[in-house]
Amino acid sequence: MQLKNNYENVRKRSMQICAPLKTEDYVVQPVVDVSPPKWHLGHTTWFFETFLLKPYYPGYTEFDPDYNFVFNSYYESVGTRVIRTDRGNLSRPAVEDIMQYREYVDTAMQGFLDTPLSPEIKALVVLGLNHEEQHQELLYTDIKYILGHNPLMPAYDKQKSDHGALVAPASFIEMAAGIYQIGYDGTGFCFDNELGRHSVYLQQYEICTQLVSNREYLDFMEAGGYADFRHWHAEGWDWVKNNQVKAPLYWHFADGQWMQYTWQGLQPVVADAPVCHISYYEAAAYAAWKGMRLPTEFEWEAAAPALAWGQRWEWTESAYLPYPGFTKAPGAIGEYNGKFMVSQMVLRGGSEVTPPDHSRITYRNFFHPGLRWQFTGIRLAR
Amino acid sequence: MQLKNNYENVRKRSMQICAPLKTEDYVVQPVVDVSPPKWHLGHTTWFFETFLLKPYYPGYTEFDPDYNFVFNSYYESVGTRVIRTDRGNLSRPAVEDIMQYREYVDTAMQGFLDTPLSPEIKALVVLGLNHEEQHQELLYTDIKYILGHNPLMPAYDKQKSDHGALVAPASFIEMAAGIYQIGYDGTGFCFDNELGRHSVYLQQYEICTQLVSNREYLDFMEAGGYADFRHWHAEGWDWVKNNQVKAPLYWHFADGQWMQYTWQGLQPVVADAPVCHISYYEAAAYAAWKGMRLPTEFEWEAAAPALAWGQRWEWTESAYLPYPGFTKAPGAIGEYNGKFMVSQMVLRGGSEVTPPDHSRITYRNFFHPGLRWQFTGIRLAR
Amino acid sequence: MQLKNNYENVRKRSMQICAPLKTEDYVVQPVVDVSPPKWHLGHTTWFFETFLLKPYYPGYTEFDPDYNFVFNSYYESVGTRVIRTDRGNLSRPAVEDIMQYREYVDTAMQGFLDTPLSPEIKALVVLGLNHEEQHQELLYTDIKYILGHNPLMPAYDKQKSDHGALVAPASFIEMAAGIYQIGYDGTGFCFDNELGRHSVYLQQYEICTQLVSNREYLDFMEAGGYADFRHWHAEGWDWVKNNQVKAPLYWHFADGQWMQYTWQGLQPVVADAPVCHISYYEAAAYAAWKGMRLPTEFEWEAAAPALAWGQRWEWTESAYLPYPGFTKAPGAIGEYNGKFMVSQMVLRGGSEVTPPDHSRITYRNFFHPGLRWQFTGIRLAR
Amino acid sequence: MQLKNNYENVRKRSMQICAPLKTEDYVVQPVVDVSPPKWHLGHTTWFFETFLLKPYYPGYTEFDPDYNFVFNSYYESVGTRVIRTDRGNLSRPAVEDIMQYREYVDTAMQGFLDTPLSPEIKALVVLGLNHEEQHQELLYTDIKYILGHNPLMPAYDKQKSDHGALVAPASFIEMAAGIYQIGYDGTGFCFDNELGRHSVYLQQYEICTQLVSNREYLDFMEAGGYADFRHWHAEGWDWVKNNQVKAPLYWHFADGQWMQYTWQGLQPVVADAPVCHISYYEAAAYAAWKGMRLPTEFEWEAAAPALAWGQRWEWTESAYLPYPGFTKAPGAIGEYNGKFMVSQMVLRGGSEVTPPDHSRITYRNFFHPGLRWQFTGIRLAR
Repeated sequence: MQLKNNYENVRKRSMQICAPLKTEDYVVQPVVDVSPPKWHLGHTTWFFETFLLKPYYPGYTEFDPDYNFVFNSYYESVGTRVIRTDRGNLSRPAVEDIMQYREYVDTAMQGFLDTPLSPEIKALVVLGLNHEEQHQELLYTDIKYILGHNPLMPAYDKQKSDHGALVAPASFIEMAAGIYQIGYDGTGFCFDNELGRHSVYLQQYEICTQLVSNREYLDFMEAGGYADFRHWHAEGWDWVKNNQVKAPLYWHFADGQWMQYTWQGLQPVVADAPVCHISYYEAAAYAAWKGMRLPTEFEWEAAAPALAWGQRWEWTESAYLPYPGFTKAPGAIGEYNGKFMVSQMVLRGGSEVTPPDHSRITYRNFFHPGLRWQFTGIRLAR
Repeated sequence: MQLKNNYENVRKRSMQICAPLKTEDYVVQPVVDVSPPKWHLGHTTWFFETFLLKPYYPGYTEFDPDYNFVFNSYYESVGTRVIRTDRGNLSRPAVEDIMQYREYVDTAMQGFLDTPLSPEIKALVVLGLNHEEQHQELLYTDIKYILGHNPLMPAYDKQKSDHGALVAPASFIEMAAGIYQIGYDGTGFCFDNELGRHSVYLQQYEICTQLVSNREYLDFMEAGGYADFRHWHAEGWDWVKNNQVKAPLYWHFADGQWMQYTWQGLQPVVADAPVCHISYYEAAAYAAWKGMRLPTEFEWEAAAPALAWGQRWEWTESAYLPYPGFTKAPGAIGEYNGKFMVSQMVLRGGSEVTPPDHSRITYRNFFHPGLRWQFTGIRLAR
Repeated sequence: MQLKNNYENVRKRSMQICAPLKTEDYVVQPVVDVSPPKWHLGHTTWFFETFLLKPYYPGYTEFDPDYNFVFNSYYESVGTRVIRTDRGNLSRPAVEDIMQYREYVDTAMQGFLDTPLSPEIKALVVLGLNHEEQHQELLYTDIKYILGHNPLMPAYDKQKSDHGALVAPASFIEMAAGIYQIGYDGTGFCFDNELGRHSVYLQQYEICTQLVSNREYLDFMEAGGYADFRHWHAEGWDWVKNNQVKAPLYWHFADGQWMQYTWQGLQPVVADAPVCHISYYEAAAYAAWKGMRLPTEFEWEAAAPALAWGQRWEWTESAYLPYPGFTKAPGAIGEYNGKFMVSQMVLRGGSEVTPPDHSRITYRNFFHPGLRWQFTGIRLAR
Repeated sequence: MQLKNNYENVRKRSMQICAPLKTEDYVVQPVVDVSPPKWHLGHTTWFFETFLLKPYYPGYTEFDPDYNFVFNSYYESVGTRVIRTDRGNLSRPAVEDIMQYREYVDTAMQGFLDTPLSPEIKALVVLGLNHEEQHQELLYTDIKYILGHNPLMPAYDKQKSDHGALVAPASFIEMAAGIYQIGYDGTGFCFDNELGRHSVYLQQYEICTQLVSNREYLDFMEAGGYADFRHWHAEGWDWVKNNQVKAPLYWHFADGQWMQYTWQGLQPVVADAPVCHISYYEAAAYAAWKGMRLPTEFEWEAAAPALAWGQRWEWTESAYLPYPGFTKAPGAIGEYNGKFMVSQMVLRGGSEVTPPDHSRITYRNFFHPGLRWQFTGIRLAR
């Protein structure tokens, strides 16, 4: 019953996120990393159809066999993918077709959830809901990218703020050296990459209670931070020069002041809001300029109860690698996390567009160091 | 009155071409050369607003100042362009906004056409209508590309054939050496690139009365034409290898036979239809394989009264260059044709999706030699 | 005897051109179009070995079977090529190996030329010598590129000028409308692309007796010629912007004046020398700015006896296309010219680094419109 | 005295490595990561001139001011770099010029080393020698790449084996969970990235005493390892497909057997030699196929005394990140290591072309996961 309610709520929330869109906004893919909203709506539905209804719900009839081809994302075991860069060329299936697909699958799922289910099946449903919640955050960030890169810069919602809770006065807390326990050991849902709770020895360190604010980041910009290679990784410096980066994503200097594209359209930058849409390179350069560093993911997790977090995904100084004893689940589900464990950095925390209850202290988010269309920010350590 | 009728008819025809589309089909741009249908609808409207209503219709209020930025194509004098590769990322203005834009401009134009107009203004209106007719052909070819590259391969119109009139028995007609007059000298509309009627001396030649058929082209394919560099220009051979070209565009070999994406979806290739969606490289290689060549644009024009033409744009062996005495009109209108006179080949004739009365014997179409999403075909000469 | 002397002289001249080089200069390929000098020396030798010694000189033993693979340029019939962009990675065969290869083949050729030879064979020898002379011009232009793009900008020869004969006072000569005969009809050597002497009807035109000077071109630059799209082809304008072109190749603005890399190193631009290292786009934009145009290749050929020419290859307004009746020779030799007849513009005249007696009024040189490492210049017509 | 001897020996060794080369081999750069040998010889010399002679040796006259521009590698503080991809275009300075540069600097250094030096200066000299030893390994690997990618596949030294010591029978040793000390704490030289000896908690693990052999790797290949995405990281799988990887670098299947380019030219693969020229992706995929994993760099260091190592650089499952308390030295020397600490994986051990005494248990080598022109291999853990 609880599961059925959860299913309904999560599925409804995806539709609510898309409510302000016009049909055309569902279709475009301005850069490779940004998927069309209609693809997210189809892909999350395809997950339930492919991994639950088709194998486990007797008598279920597939909505359309072509959809497996269109909505598979990276599950190599489930057939040929539409390669990712082509998603923005797919005018069909139309948005209304995908809405029907969602309704069709939801109706079947409601029936399926009324039947007796094994714990393994229930766990798969929960995984599907968490998967959809991950895509809800991507819906927000991809919609922001689509609208924020349109020359008309239309508002998404004139009432919705995206500057996040303001940054309170900051202090550094000291953490003693010693062995800490890292990884999930609760009884609720978690992803496989959080499992394998294990001991990590940390040296003594200090970590800031607050995120870096726009005001502080502007100090870095005005001190010439983007023009001095000494603060940057070699790869980050190339990134700055190749992309002519001079400010966080969505910032525009107009009429003598810094403006920022937000859910409400172009607005002045709010000085005390936590800086947002920052790459790992920028986060590391800012920390170097301050004579400090970013925390490791283990330092973050050990100190988390004492930190103000949840407004921004916080870049850590940890690469995304398996925990001791990590093993991939067999089959397509096993492709979920392990295959990405190279060349990415871990982010901890959560953001203002993370679905409620979708983050936790052990949650490991990860992205390539040059990406910044997520709601990413900076916390300092030393 | 005639002009007002023409205006209404031409503008209506653009809408009719788009009638079978879903909203999503208006938005996508699968490759650089293919523009989203909604862009064509906006751009042709922008032409009337920019070159007629704004300068010459007192009291006219611009629909939306941002549209100049969005719908300018290549007119460098009229402001910063949206670069062409970004057109497919523009979810806004939405299709309904563009429909309102069309109605708004059409209403103003109807009023404007009721006022007394100078011959220069009337000529500009006629140019705008011919411009829109050019985009009507592009609407057809771009829509075909968008639907034909969708994995669902939806039909555009189940009743509409696109194999063209079948090829009749062919013969070669002989043309005597001598001086021929080339270029437009009528009193109707023509483009500036057709003007400057002038003498050209042609050697004796023969030209085929019919286009090459699918059956004939299949002979070339089955004889290994795509695998033998001797038939190809060096640049064409690189094109074949880099793009792994093995057949005309839209051809698919399935279940033991050659199929072709058409307005009706995937259909068997019709042997006696004129071969279509052929690059200049392919046309030249086919001719070389036959021991013949393509006609020059002058040979084509001199012989045209005796040829069956109008089903396919026919690649000629002429590069697109100015006629003697060609001069660009001053201002933005002068950018219409002259600026493209390098690295392109001339096509003559017209196709089944060319608007009625939009072609004539002196009409000079032009494309880069590797492009083939237009309805292009082959005629032989020797 | 004459042929044997010619052979010796032409072959010696290639070595003389390379005499000022260091071993390292023979090896590098800074851009795709520039070949390493050692490759030219090997390739021209390979021509004689492949097309004469191996098929026609009984008892000849190939120098090294691997060399066919390394020194073939674009002759697809003679085996797998080393693709062109890889030429600069070939440290072996070493320069000394190639010198031995040249001596080995020259010795054999001397013997071969002492035997009785059919006219066809003799014609092939002459073709080989003309082929080597073409590569002698490329040796000069490629060496200039290699040294002129080295940060040390070393001189090639401190005594050698490359500003060409100075431009004399210019006038326009008028040519009457009528039929002119175009193409080679002498008894000496010519390339296949010059053959097929034929009638061409020309309208009345005027053509300048002199080339455009650096001083005149500087006027264009100072009038903002590189910043005003109206003078440029659309493709040329993209070329200017993508490559940030602001002056001819090898020009550098330093210490308040325009300098030019020459055979003697960096030198001030000589105002009265004919402008050099100009792309077709620049030539056409300059002519447009002057309110004139470039001559067609036919206009050039018809007027040539009255022009001062031979200092610069002169861009014409003609695309490189076959003359009426052009047919490719069978086999690899047939690949010489015809396969390049698309997307290139014709240049007429000859330059200060063209081998003596290697040009003539009917000679058709050709390059892509954006290339300018050859000694290219501008002549106006109207 | 000791330092002067070391200087002489290290400098001589670089020359010995290059002894078998022809002048041309010094010049080419077939891919971005491979530098021309002459560049290595100049760059290592520039290090001593720039960081020691110019600042600290009174009266020293710079050899040539242009060389700073040419031989700087990535030290952004020391002036504008020659960007890395252009190194292969530099025919000048010639090899003989660089040899003179080396002699000039060596003579000055011998004089300098006879003067009384502070410990900081001595440490800089030692750093310069270790820097040159790093480039000695690169000289070997770059020379192998240059010769091994030449179509003639010339031998470097017909007497020199590069299959490494054969693999002995393997076993797994068990390491207990607990705190281990990681990082350098000796009194000799080490790089800054090894400093900051610190505690790391390791879970219980087993590690193999031997490297993976060619025979074992062939089992993986023959089992279809390169064709089954399940063994690969997503990024690794893209790498396999984009580069059509089917075997380790330098392997060629010819006449029914696997051959390998070696110092002696093309030779049959030696089954019991440790597999070599493997990317991280391949190492990880092999381990996954075996149901095991790669060790972390900490596991490797903790177990190293009991392992057979030194034949191959061994990929670990650790990203290259700073040790706790790592700080960059001020100035250009500080750019040595820290700026590369993103997107690279750590390798431990050393290879048959690592200079004698240049590796140690705490040495941290690092490369991007797709690179394999180093002598890289695989060790398993579980």
